[in-house]
Amino acid sequence: MLYAEKLLDQVENYLAQIEMPAEPELLYTPIAYSLEGGGKRLRPVLLMLSYGLFSDDYQRALPAAAAIEVFHNFTLLHDDIMDNALIRRGKPSVYAKWGKNVAILSGDAMMIAAYQLLGRTQTDRLHPILSVFSETAIGVCEGQQYDMDFETKQKVSVVEYMRMIELKTSVLLAGAVVIGAMLGGASEEDCKALRRFAIELGLAFQLQDDLLDSYGDERLGKAIGGDILEGKKTYLMITAMSRADEEQREVLRTTHLDAKRSDAEKIARVKSLYDALDVPHLTEQQIAIRFERALAQLDSLQTDPARIEPLREYAKSLMGRNK
Amino acid sequence: MLYAEKLLDQVENYLAQIEMPAEPELLYTPIAYSLEGGGKRLRPVLLMLSYGLFSDDYQRALPAAAAIEVFHNFTLLHDDIMDNALIRRGKPSVYAKWGKNVAILSGDAMMIAAYQLLGRTQTDRLHPILSVFSETAIGVCEGQQYDMDFETKQKVSVVEYMRMIELKTSVLLAGAVVIGAMLGGASEEDCKALRRFAIELGLAFQLQDDLLDSYGDERLGKAIGGDILEGKKTYLMITAMSRADEEQREVLRTTHLDAKRSDAEKIARVKSLYDALDVPHLTEQQIAIRFERALAQLDSLQTDPARIEPLREYAKSLMGRNK
Repeated sequence: MLYAEKLLDQVENYLAQIEMPAEPELLYTPIAYSLEGGGKRLRPVLLMLSYGLFSDDYQRALPAAAAIEVFHNFTLLHDDIMDNALIRRGKPSVYAKWGKNVAILSGDAMMIAAYQLLGRTQTDRLHPILSVFSETAIGVCEGQQYDMDFETKQKVSVVEYMRMIELKTSVLLAGAVVIGAMLGGASEEDCKALRRFAIELGLAFQLQDDLLDSYGDERLGKAIGGDILEGKKTYLMITAMSRADEEQREVLRTTHLDAKRSDAEKIARVKSLYDALDVPHLTEQQIAIRFERALAQLDSLQTDPARIEPLREYAKSLMGRNK
Repeated sequence: MLYAEKLLDQVENYLAQIEMPAEPELLYTPIAYSLEGGGKRLRPVLLMLSYGLFSDDYQRALPAAAAIEVFHNFTLLHDDIMDNALIRRGKPSVYAKWGKNVAILSGDAMMIAAYQLLGRTQTDRLHPILSVFSETAIGVCEGQQYDMDFETKQKVSVVEYMRMIELKTSVLLAGAVVIGAMLGGASEEDCKALRRFAIELGLAFQLQDDLLDSYGDERLGKAIGGDILEGKKTYLMITAMSRADEEQREVLRTTHLDAKRSDAEKIARVKSLYDALDVPHLTEQQIAIRFERALAQLDSLQTDPARIEPLREYAKSLMGRNK
């Protein structure tokens, strides 16, 4: 993993040296606060790894990598207002710390900053790269809208759910690898393969996230069952609903609202139904299928196979399958 | 004015044929709603007029003109959330009609749509044009932040106020004319002159707006005194404060909060102070200075003087000085 870590370092350094005006303070301080929040920097690292499939001059990919990361953080900033989320990466969200108006406006400025960074890319392919970036960005907004739509929708199908997480999660990973590849000089065919790689990887990643929220991961030590307590329509819940009989469906639908039960009881009740309906196993299967499909795309790339290894390793480590 | 009207028609047609996906409905319907709202289309018309100073092939400037207009409408959409404004151009605002979350997200999508339109521009100068567009956009955000800062600030100086409206209003007009000129193939010197033209025009326009809000315009038939009733720090209020003695200052500061007076009494009380302090006259003077400075910039442009007339006429008509 040393290779991806080196790229991560470069991304962090680049992000840290982005200069921002001091004034107006309430516009720029939240941007800096939000960017220093850390996180895996998954998207810019993917962009760099994808660039590295075809080219060595890493410096050239850094502005675009930063653009993708800044855009991602902008979406988190605005999502937190819409979801009324007070905590982000263990710290108060911008929304919690500065309120709605500052979060809206500094988020807007952050999206513009993302385009500014993209515009710093030295390339003669700015037209298509800008187009991919904007299409990616609008896809993420569509995903967030579907996600909000689902909250009030009675029935969400597995197909609708997969489409939503493809937009909300996969599309940005796809934008990252495609822009990285375009900058590196990849063929259109390779860009398409990398796009499919990222779409499937994103789906696998999101389904795994859903599974871990209910079944946990000793490595994360994270509280378990948040989605169940919120009554969230995750892959697990939707799969369970599609397999449940009327009585079970009622339990799935209402348990999180039941004021007479403790949180632990609610979680246990829903999970015992998940288990009875074979949901964890089916989810694992779906994750494995998606992840395999992702990796298979890498075999077709027209580049030195040795260049592909770091990206493959990084994908595996993301899924906790590198050991 | 036939010439600018022809350009306005072209802008309207171009905006009307922008295709938007049908789904998710709550993301795209508010964008269409907001764009069909009309308005003067001041910014895209300025872009087209500026382009027309140097080139005839209007079609080529339309995507950028639309980008500027879509961006402007995005700012209104988000401003309405921040200002809790329920009415926009005589109709319910997106915020009033669909709520905060839809307004945030469809606004975000609208900003991305603006960049998408800009990206459709056929030009080999996309790098500098994208850079001007983003710098313009971030300036508008800065202006909005300063405007919000002023609400809670005890004392705002005339200089601070002018800086705020330069960012909030002039900078976008400047972005429009500079991008139009760049697309038309203008020299850097002409771009600079046009930028100064738009900055001064925007200031004159905003100060006139401030003046009309309190002193009205028989042509508009608009309700008078809204700014006074809100206790808004306009050019008139700030100028009055800077010239008032302690007693008068107290009246200016507190009249809008006085529950014992009717609206008409409050307006009359503040206006009689404005009059005593010579504020309308000073504002008129400032408007005239700014507008003259704007027009003077046009004389230096390196193009056929006949090409300049439509822009000059349009600027005059904006200020109601074309008769």
